[in-house]
Amino acid sequence: MQSQLKTHPHRRFNILTGEWVLVSPHRTKRPWQGKTETSAKKEEITYDPKCFLCPTNTRINGEVNPDYKNTYVFKNDFGALLEDTPLFEYNEGLLHAEGEKGICKVICFSPNHSLTIPDMEIDDLVTVVDTWKNEFTELGNDKDINYVQLFENKGAIMGCSNPHPHGQIWAQHSIPTEVQKKTTAQKNYLEKNGTGLLQDYIEQELKEDVRVISQNESFVTLIPFWAVWPYEAMIVPKRQMTNILGLTDKEKRDFAEQLKTLTQKYDALFDTSFPYSSGIHQAPTDGAYYKEWHWHMSFYPPLLRSATVKKFMVGYEMFAMAQRDITAESAAEQLKSL
Amino acid sequence: MQSQLKTHPHRRFNILTGEWVLVSPHRTKRPWQGKTETSAKKEEITYDPKCFLCPTNTRINGEVNPDYKNTYVFKNDFGALLEDTPLFEYNEGLLHAEGEKGICKVICFSPNHSLTIPDMEIDDLVTVVDTWKNEFTELGNDKDINYVQLFENKGAIMGCSNPHPHGQIWAQHSIPTEVQKKTTAQKNYLEKNGTGLLQDYIEQELKEDVRVISQNESFVTLIPFWAVWPYEAMIVPKRQMTNILGLTDKEKRDFAEQLKTLTQKYDALFDTSFPYSSGIHQAPTDGAYYKEWHWHMSFYPPLLRSATVKKFMVGYEMFAMAQRDITAESAAEQLKSL
Ligand SMILES: O=P(O)(O)O[C@H]1O[C@H](CO)[C@@H](O)[C@H](O)[C@H]1O
Ligand SMILES: O=P(O)(O)O[C@H]1O[C@H](CO)[C@@H](O)[C@H](O)[C@H]1O
Repeated sequence: MQSQLKTHPHRRFNILTGEWVLVSPHRTKRPWQGKTETSAKKEEITYDPKCFLCPTNTRINGEVNPDYKNTYVFKNDFGALLEDTPLFEYNEGLLHAEGEKGICKVICFSPNHSLTIPDMEIDDLVTVVDTWKNEFTELGNDKDINYVQLFENKGAIMGCSNPHPHGQIWAQHSIPTEVQKKTTAQKNYLEKNGTGLLQDYIEQELKEDVRVISQNESFVTLIPFWAVWPYEAMIVPKRQMTNILGLTDKEKRDFAEQLKTLTQKYDALFDTSFPYSSGIHQAPTDGAYYKEWHWHMSFYPPLLRSATVKKFMVGYEMFAMAQRDITAESAAEQLKSL
Repeated sequence: MQSQLKTHPHRRFNILTGEWVLVSPHRTKRPWQGKTETSAKKEEITYDPKCFLCPTNTRINGEVNPDYKNTYVFKNDFGALLEDTPLFEYNEGLLHAEGEKGICKVICFSPNHSLTIPDMEIDDLVTVVDTWKNEFTELGNDKDINYVQLFENKGAIMGCSNPHPHGQIWAQHSIPTEVQKKTTAQKNYLEKNGTGLLQDYIEQELKEDVRVISQNESFVTLIPFWAVWPYEAMIVPKRQMTNILGLTDKEKRDFAEQLKTLTQKYDALFDTSFPYSSGIHQAPTDGAYYKEWHWHMSFYPPLLRSATVKKFMVGYEMFAMAQRDITAESAAEQLKSL
């Protein structure tokens, strides 16, 4: 049975979103004559006087960054969400809209202009995790904020316009589409089986051991069976927690360690500063208790087979469904071996 | 009310997919220092001896293209779907997969290496529509093909590796995610209201007349209220038809004309050979009668504000929900005025 997944085109089911992905394992030999990207080299300077994120520099809006020593968080000067938006409703026949209130913030991971996550010390990554926890607590306590999205766009190819290592937080009133899908799936599963969806899933993955890239006492890093992006991966806590606030000191370290391990493997894969978008999915912060939620961090990297050839999610993928060539198992094998 | 949509961040509901998009109208002044694309210039030669799609040339697999005079269809030499795939089922605990059978084809729109849709004659575009009809009929009649996706990836930025004007067809056994969403929404609406969802929608759009770009007797071209991509547009037949097979001769011409008008406006917008992915969504071909389906063609262009700056659908968009800056109304106004 397993061998059919290696040979034949097939679709796989994503148990978290309820959607399918088309896998075409026979297609890896397709020649590529199209657009190529420039390979991302690591920055080399620790301080760039023109960077809006480096310590002591002046940002576009005139504010001066403090001489910060580890992480630094500020409100995005051009946020897509604003704090003073009215929560109006607009319903005209078949047109439905709602005011969306929120806040967009930037988190500098380090004062060092060139120090990306794979090259940071575990201690400093623990500080990043602490910063995420603090922000999540503060924003989650706001009665108008019902969901907090932590994410990072890394690399120019992922729309990141500043190489200084940083992530973002967009926190908002409504609960976004992707989070709703995952809430529904986890809730239905818990109601039906009395056990956690991701709890049972990682137990199966640890037993099969063909998509696991690495693990430690508290976390497992794997390529999900239904991965869409060629080297998509997921870091999942072994213990069910609705959000990152429950992390113990030991777990924070273990999380930081998996974060470093995965991103180091990524950089090694194509010998490049590996681009990706990463994000942490957690329970909404609307005050309800989401006992079905098992938080996790996902990585969606665009590269397909070298530092310069990316996977295009275009025509078929936009109109029909996601598609990939290499299987999750072969991607896991490659990353594990590094 | 309408004025709040011009000023405040809000989310809009997509009546066809049931998903929301975040609109941030205040954010158009965000400066851009990130990655830029090279502006796509029109090709200038009518024949390229190295092109795999030009008449009389030899393709990678050794086959020779005929000296075709209008459109030419062939099986994709590196298709993601194959005709002889077994329809196996794989269910192991929380892992679910299914064999996916199908076929991928390429349609050259014209023998001329440089003639993109906006520059083609209406008569030749009618031939393209006829080719789509023939392919849809033939593939749809195959008992193992339950859905036929017609689409085009135009421009290197959309993963198109050959500038010779061509589209694709991926036809398959299962009904893809996006199509299922649209089937559900149209079915529910018809059951509840006794009228067609898109029928009622275009009636409202024609009355409001703020998102309509152009129209003729049989078709309307508009920016949907819930558009995700900055200049996303939709060509919709005024009369409900489940698929393109119902098109009369007059309607084929009217469709070809709207196709030309929209793509000409696109090229004029940023003075470039405007990239996009386009696709025709129609009822599945599994033999059931989908009386709720109203076929339409959508265009998802990546450019944001010039020939070289694109919209990145990354971190927040991947983990939370789609996001756009300019409103659908202002995009429609710009395209209408050209
Ligand atoms: O089939 P092509 O043109 O080689 O490939 C292009 O379109 C396909 C269908 O949208 C995508 O899967 C590929 O990523 C893209 O490069
Ligand atoms: O906020 P930034 O880094 O300027 O912008 C980047 O991330 C945002 C959130 O994913 C996207 O909406 C933008 O398209 C992208 O360029």
